[in-house]
Amino acid sequence: MYPAPRTPEQRKKDTLARFATEVDAWVATAGKDGDVYLTPLSYHWNGATFTMATAEQTTTARNLRTAGEVRLAFGETRDVVLVHGVVEAFSEEAVPLKLADDFVAEVLWDPRGGTNPYAFFQVTPRRIQAWREENELDGRDLMKDGVWLV
Amino acid sequence: MYPAPRTPEQRKKDTLARFATEVDAWVATAGKDGDVYLTPLSYHWNGATFTMATAEQTTTARNLRTAGEVRLAFGETRDVVLVHGVVEAFSEEAVPLKLADDFVAEVLWDPRGGTNPYAFFQVTPRRIQAWREENELDGRDLMKDGVWLV
Repeated sequence: MYPAPRTPEQRKKDTLARFATEVDAWVATAGKDGDVYLTPLSYHWNGATFTMATAEQTTTARNLRTAGEVRLAFGETRDVVLVHGVVEAFSEEAVPLKLADDFVAEVLWDPRGGTNPYAFFQVTPRRIQAWREENELDGRDLMKDGVWLV
Repeated sequence: MYPAPRTPEQRKKDTLARFATEVDAWVATAGKDGDVYLTPLSYHWNGATFTMATAEQTTTARNLRTAGEVRLAFGETRDVVLVHGVVEAFSEEAVPLKLADDFVAEVLWDPRGGTNPYAFFQVTPRRIQAWREENELDGRDLMKDGVWLV
């Protein structure tokens, strides 16, 4: 039925390739009162953290600032990559130049300096999971508490 | 650059086709303390509501029961369909037979009667949005407050 489950090493390799090649991630956030929000955002992956940007006035920006945590999903529901990450938020003025410039170089769009203020968010993964079909549910954890298990 | 934005009627048609043909949705939920969760689940769309099932012990089941609301995303980040829905939860014993049977007929798997108790969830859309690229952000609302706008 399904292909044999991938080795942990292969899953890590596929996951890192996914981070490098995908353009957007599904971004799930929650508000203080427990309401949930979901939207796609473009990102830059620098090998250790994701950088994203969205308008300060959006629900996602508000939630990322207050909750300080985020869930990201990449690609397809039958080739799942999920990230639970902690969030550092920066205003347009306060964002480290390299962080913003690397983001701009990847998404080919600079959110800074418009009339609509944007925020930048740096997401550091704490947990990473990857699976394709049911036979890969065992061993889906690739990172826990910020540490790669493979 | 991008194709011309679709008409509202075309977006509704594409969205209903998506609901009918996709197998899984990304399911975003929040806990009482504002933690967020994201996972893919298989579903059945009956033309008005989605039916899903997941083990009672999972974070998603707990969040769906307590929050009573969910965000669903379908398909790709460059052909976005987002649903904000209200949730009715049923135990294996209490689930209406037709609801469970239609779900089983679609996903070809019956969660009932195992040693691991499952819950069924019926999701009624209150808001539906669909867009492809930036030129479709205007007019992305197809349903608001449970009413189709087109």
